[in-house]
Amino acid sequence: MKITRVAIIGLGLLGGSVGLAVQARLPGVTTTGYDRDPTVRDAARARGLVQHICDSASEAVRDADCVILCVPVGAMESAAREMAEGLSPHAIISDVGSSKKSVADALATALPGRTIIPAHPVAGTEQSGPGAGFATLFEGRWCIITPPEGADKNAIDALAAFWTGLGAKVEMMDADHHDLVLAVTSHIPHLIAYTIVGTASDLEDVTRSEVIKYSAGGFRDFTRIAASDPVMWRDVFLNNKGAVLEMLGRFTEDLTALQRAIRSGDGETLHDLFSKTRAIRREVIDQGQDDERADFGRTHGE
Amino acid sequence: MKITRVAIIGLGLLGGSVGLAVQARLPGVTTTGYDRDPTVRDAARARGLVQHICDSASEAVRDADCVILCVPVGAMESAAREMAEGLSPHAIISDVGSSKKSVADALATALPGRTIIPAHPVAGTEQSGPGAGFATLFEGRWCIITPPEGADKNAIDALAAFWTGLGAKVEMMDADHHDLVLAVTSHIPHLIAYTIVGTASDLEDVTRSEVIKYSAGGFRDFTRIAASDPVMWRDVFLNNKGAVLEMLGRFTEDLTALQRAIRSGDGETLHDLFSKTRAIRREVIDQGQDDERADFGRTHGE
Repeated sequence: MKITRVAIIGLGLLGGSVGLAVQARLPGVTTTGYDRDPTVRDAARARGLVQHICDSASEAVRDADCVILCVPVGAMESAAREMAEGLSPHAIISDVGSSKKSVADALATALPGRTIIPAHPVAGTEQSGPGAGFATLFEGRWCIITPPEGADKNAIDALAAFWTGLGAKVEMMDADHHDLVLAVTSHIPHLIAYTIVGTASDLEDVTRSEVIKYSAGGFRDFTRIAASDPVMWRDVFLNNKGAVLEMLGRFTEDLTALQRAIRSGDGETLHDLFSKTRAIRREVIDQGQDDERADFGRTHGE
Repeated sequence: MKITRVAIIGLGLLGGSVGLAVQARLPGVTTTGYDRDPTVRDAARARGLVQHICDSASEAVRDADCVILCVPVGAMESAAREMAEGLSPHAIISDVGSSKKSVADALATALPGRTIIPAHPVAGTEQSGPGAGFATLFEGRWCIITPPEGADKNAIDALAAFWTGLGAKVEMMDADHHDLVLAVTSHIPHLIAYTIVGTASDLEDVTRSEVIKYSAGGFRDFTRIAASDPVMWRDVFLNNKGAVLEMLGRFTEDLTALQRAIRSGDGETLHDLFSKTRAIRREVIDQGQDDERADFGRTHGE
């Protein structure tokens, strides 16, 4: 089994990047696409995100051997229902959502008896919409596939080969474990970034203008993440509630311990932690998961 | 009054960048430097961070009309004492420390009766040591000068002109207000980043290897800040305790409110905050305080 006709539902950052990556790297594979928003469809057509933009979801998925849902995780079920009547019987239904247990449940409810293989490419930027995607987004990134119990082995292999073809590295994982891991490596970082940016913009004794001016001290890093798509992230937190609250509890415990160390002037505890965290950065870079240039390669000066 | 002979004490990221920036942008100004660590002095000599590396602090500051202390804020007092006997009577004593009230006190104690004008260029990267500095670090960044009450107006103007000469924009501020503003825009972001990176590396149910592999989901951004110099940051938290604890309290309140919203499934509260924070990112970019390229201009693909 090999994927040769891909339909992409939702043409924002992720959907657009999948479409561009397929066209750039998998010349034998055809692409169709649909977005509920007609202005997004127009923009997608202008940028050539996929070969054929259709005017309905069911038209877009007709004849596709793989459908990739690239909509917020809270919209998966309705998107799946919308395309259902056009689906060919053996199509693989997959997605790019950031929570996997909830998506597996939503798709199983909307499309009983279908071949559903959820997936999550761990890649993105803070930008969103049909103008944001690019063909190299998945290169060197991991794509986590979370096959439900009893899923067709050939379909899993075909989906894995598809993602490898887009430049990603593929890992298989249980959906629950995925949701826990991503709570740590993605959801809590986003929640914290949104929070601190909100806190900073609501102070009385420090003006918003001061927060912006002196943001190069560290704050600006958080503003990037906190500029991510609001609907996508609302849905992530609502759909991965258990793991997020669990990990948030651990973070808060650790933060309270540091707060106590600061209050009591315990420099050793601070220094020990601050030394340990440096090694993690090194590993992230060594494993090709971040730019090794200082400051992410940001521009300094003209 | 014009600064023409600068001595730099401490030749890490900041000291090295000041030395290189002076040589690149202020050809009439001579530079001397000293670092307590002989291996740092050798590396600084090899890179030409300043024109003359001296073997003692008092020798480095002899004849200087401005001394810039570029050591961790907890080392300011001892560095000041070490150079005291070499100081010319009218030299301006300044620094680049991230907390200003504590530095003003430390320098006033170590050098009574001297012209002390603390300053803080809000610029840096996660790298440290004599290999990390570069001449354009201060371009377009703000340098906050916190003149003590009754400070010599001519000295303040000379120091402001010096930083403007290095490409920075200068702002005057009361030391206490500086410490509050920087607690928000720099110290709390660092504390949070150190905490989450520590939390993630200490979990039992998610492996360190998984944390690294899937860090592109957001976590990797935090590892950059959490790779910053441990001694420098230990000292910042110990020396700006009041403002840090105050701002940490506000952050924690806001985080608790979001936690409650997630638990109760209150998507509207989440969406409202996530929409609001996007505007802050826009302002940071519009005011030239961050790279406008997606993902800070990180490399994606080959």
